[in-house]
Amino acid sequence: MTYRPLDEFTVISYVRERPPMAEFFASLERLSVSEVGDGNLNLVFIVQNEDNPSESVILKQALPYLRVAGDSWPLTRERMRYETQALLKHNELAPGLAPQVYDFDPEMSLVIMEHLKSHEIMRKGLVARNHYPDFADHISTFLVNVLFFTSDLYLTGPEKKQLQATFVNEHLRKLQEDFVYTNPYMESEENNWNPLLDEVVQAVRADSALKIAIAEMKEAYMTHGEALIHADLHTGSIMLNEQDTRVIDPEFAFFGPMAYDIGAVLQNIILNYLSHYGHTPDREQREAYQAYLLDVVRDIWNAFARKFDKVWAENNRGELVPDAYWNFPGGQEAFANYRSRFINRLLQETAGHGGVKFLRRMMGIVNVWDLTSIDNMETRAVAERLAVRIGKRWVLERKSVTTIDDLIGIVLEETKDVAV
Amino acid sequence: MTYRPLDEFTVISYVRERPPMAEFFASLERLSVSEVGDGNLNLVFIVQNEDNPSESVILKQALPYLRVAGDSWPLTRERMRYETQALLKHNELAPGLAPQVYDFDPEMSLVIMEHLKSHEIMRKGLVARNHYPDFADHISTFLVNVLFFTSDLYLTGPEKKQLQATFVNEHLRKLQEDFVYTNPYMESEENNWNPLLDEVVQAVRADSALKIAIAEMKEAYMTHGEALIHADLHTGSIMLNEQDTRVIDPEFAFFGPMAYDIGAVLQNIILNYLSHYGHTPDREQREAYQAYLLDVVRDIWNAFARKFDKVWAENNRGELVPDAYWNFPGGQEAFANYRSRFINRLLQETAGHGGVKFLRRMMGIVNVWDLTSIDNMETRAVAERLAVRIGKRWVLERKSVTTIDDLIGIVLEETKDVAV
Repeated sequence: MTYRPLDEFTVISYVRERPPMAEFFASLERLSVSEVGDGNLNLVFIVQNEDNPSESVILKQALPYLRVAGDSWPLTRERMRYETQALLKHNELAPGLAPQVYDFDPEMSLVIMEHLKSHEIMRKGLVARNHYPDFADHISTFLVNVLFFTSDLYLTGPEKKQLQATFVNEHLRKLQEDFVYTNPYMESEENNWNPLLDEVVQAVRADSALKIAIAEMKEAYMTHGEALIHADLHTGSIMLNEQDTRVIDPEFAFFGPMAYDIGAVLQNIILNYLSHYGHTPDREQREAYQAYLLDVVRDIWNAFARKFDKVWAENNRGELVPDAYWNFPGGQEAFANYRSRFINRLLQETAGHGGVKFLRRMMGIVNVWDLTSIDNMETRAVAERLAVRIGKRWVLERKSVTTIDDLIGIVLEETKDVAV
Repeated sequence: MTYRPLDEFTVISYVRERPPMAEFFASLERLSVSEVGDGNLNLVFIVQNEDNPSESVILKQALPYLRVAGDSWPLTRERMRYETQALLKHNELAPGLAPQVYDFDPEMSLVIMEHLKSHEIMRKGLVARNHYPDFADHISTFLVNVLFFTSDLYLTGPEKKQLQATFVNEHLRKLQEDFVYTNPYMESEENNWNPLLDEVVQAVRADSALKIAIAEMKEAYMTHGEALIHADLHTGSIMLNEQDTRVIDPEFAFFGPMAYDIGAVLQNIILNYLSHYGHTPDREQREAYQAYLLDVVRDIWNAFARKFDKVWAENNRGELVPDAYWNFPGGQEAFANYRSRFINRLLQETAGHGGVKFLRRMMGIVNVWDLTSIDNMETRAVAERLAVRIGKRWVLERKSVTTIDDLIGIVLEETKDVAV
C-alpha cells in the first residue's frame, strides 16, 4: 500500500484489513481510536475493541514531517524499520522485556504493537520515589540476553556480520555521535543549559584532558561493533510497574559497544538520585531513596556481571573463543580469567560512556526531565554541578575502575557535603 | 553474460567483446594468451598484443572449484567482487601503489587489470637480499592514504557506514579469524609446523597468559571497524622493484583495525630478517642485510606516524573530532596530543596483531616461504623459535610500547646470541 498518513477515521478501516489484527481482536466490529502522539515525527493511535476494552493495540506511524532539513523523511522512514527490527530481536532474545510486535508495514512506515496499559515511564516513577523490586533483575537480563546473543561470543562470524549488516542505521547514529559526543562540548546552537552553569559549561569545553577522553570514548562508540545495542537506553525508554519491565523505542539500535547501554541505565539512575535534592526536600526521606537507588545501581551491575559470565560459560558457541581453544591443562581457569577480564573492561567502558552521558545531559540538546522539572534554578544547579563532577570523574578515572563500588564511591564522595 | 570458465581460446573472443579492452589495446587483431595461474581457485591469463608486446593485461577469473565444502563457490565469487572493490578504492586513494583495474564483470566473476611486468614478489626479493630504497616511503603512503581516508577521521558518519556496508565480506573474514587467531593455538588438522618445534608449539597452546592476550587481539580484530584494511598485507601481497611498489590481492578487505595491516608488513619483514640465518650463512653479509631490514621497519613506522599525523591535521573533515571541537584556548595542543595518543595506540596494536601473526606463521595452516625454503631443518628451527619468542613478547608487552625502537629492541635482544 502506498504511503498515506492515517487519521482517526482511516485507522479503523486500515486495521480491519490487516490479517494479524483479525487474529488479535476477537471482533473487528466496534473499534475505537484515540490519537495519543505529539504529532511531531510520529502518529500514535490506541485502537480498542469496544466490545472488550481489554483488547487494545498501539499503532505508530512515521509522519513525512520535514522537521529541519529536506532529508528527514527518509530518516523517519528508516527509523521505523530499525525500531521494528530491534523490537523483534528484543522479543526473541529477552521475551517479556519489550513490547510485542503484532504487525509491521514498511510501505506505510507503520508498526502495530502491544499497548502497555499498566506501565509508567521509569523516569516519572523514580521522581515519585517508587520502588521496583524486580527492576535490577529484569534490566540485567535484558542487557545480558540482547548483548550476549548478538555478539561474537554466541554467533558465528558470518551470522554476526550478516545481522550487523541489517543495522547500518547511519543517519540515526549520526544524531547520537553529534548530540552525545561532540556538540555539547563546543559552540553549537541547539545546546541548552541552566544559565547558572555557564562557568561549568565553559570549563568543560576548555578542559583538554577531558576533551581528549571524550574523543576516545567517541572513537570506541563509532567503531567497536560488539553487539546489537539499544543506543538510547535511558529511563525514558523504560516502561514498568512493580512486576513488569519493558524496554521501548529502540530506533537508534546498531552494532556498538555493549557498555554504552549499561552506562546509559546506570547513569540515568544516578541523575535521578541527584534530582532528589530538588524533588525530595525532606532529608531523611531523600537519603533513604538515594540509598535505594545506589543499591539498584549496584544490583544491576552485579547481576549483569554474574549472568553474563554464566550465560557465556554455558553457551560458548560463538566465533570468538571456541571451547577447543581452552582445551589444555589450566584452560578452564584461563577461560574464566578471560571472561573476567572481558567483563571488567565492560565496567571500565560503562564508566567512560556513562560519564560522557552525564555531561551531555547537562549541556547538550536534550536535558533530562528529572532535573529540568526542578523549579528552583539554584537547587537544580546544585544537582547539575554534581552531575558534571561525577561524569567527569567517571570518564577520567575509568581505567582504574575494578568494581561497581568504585563508581558508586565517586557519587558518594561528590555528594557527601551537599547542603540543600 | 552467464558464468562460464574461460580457456586459452575463449579468452580472446571474450576480451574482444569488452569495450574497455578496445580502448586499452591499439588493436585487437592479434592477441596471444598464456595461462599463468595455479588452476586452483582462480584462472589467471596474460593477454598480449602480438603487434605491440608492451600492451598486455592480466585477466583473473574465479573458478567454481569445490575446494573443501559445498559453499566455497559463493565464497569464491564474492571474493572477486571484494578484491575489485578494494583495488578500485586503493587506486583512488593511493594512485600508483596498486595495479590498475581495467574491467570488472561480476556475472563472470572476472577482473581485468594491469600486468606488472617488471615487478617481483617482495618475499622473494628479500630472500635474495635486494634493497628497495623507496619501499618504506611507498608502503607508508599506501597505509596512511587508505587507512586515513576510509576512517571516521576523514569521512562523515554516514559516508563511512555506507562504505563499510559494501565490505561485509563475512566468509573471507571467517578464514582469517580461524587461521590467524584461533586454530594455530589449538588442535586443528590443517596446522603445520616444523617437527623440531613440537615442544614450542605445545607450550604456546598451553600458555594461559598468551592465549588470553591472543583472544583479546582477536576480539579487537573482529569488532573494531576503524578503516578499510587489506587484511592480508604480507610480503607476498606486495610486488615491487627499485622504483615502484604495488599492493595486490586485497580480497580479504573489510573495515577492521588499522594496526592489523601495519603489523602484517612489519612482522613479515622481521620474519625475513630471521630467515637469513638460513639463507645467508656469511655472517657479515647477513648482519648487514638484517641491519638494513631493521632500518626499513623503523623507517616504515616513523614515516607512517609522521604522514598520518600530518594528513590528519591538514584534512580533519571527518565525523570524529571536527575542528570546532578543538576551538578553545589550548585546543590545538589538545588536538595534537589526541592525535599523538591515537597514533601511539596504533603502534601498541601493531605490536599485538603483528605478534599474533608471528605465531600463526610458525604453527598454522599457512607458513612462510622465507622460512620453509630453508633446507636444513635445524637451522630453520633456530629462526622459527626466535619468531615465536619475538611474537610472544610483541603480544604480551604491547601495552608498554611507546616507540618503534621498543619493538626493534625485542628483536635485537632475542637475536643477540644466535649461533648459526
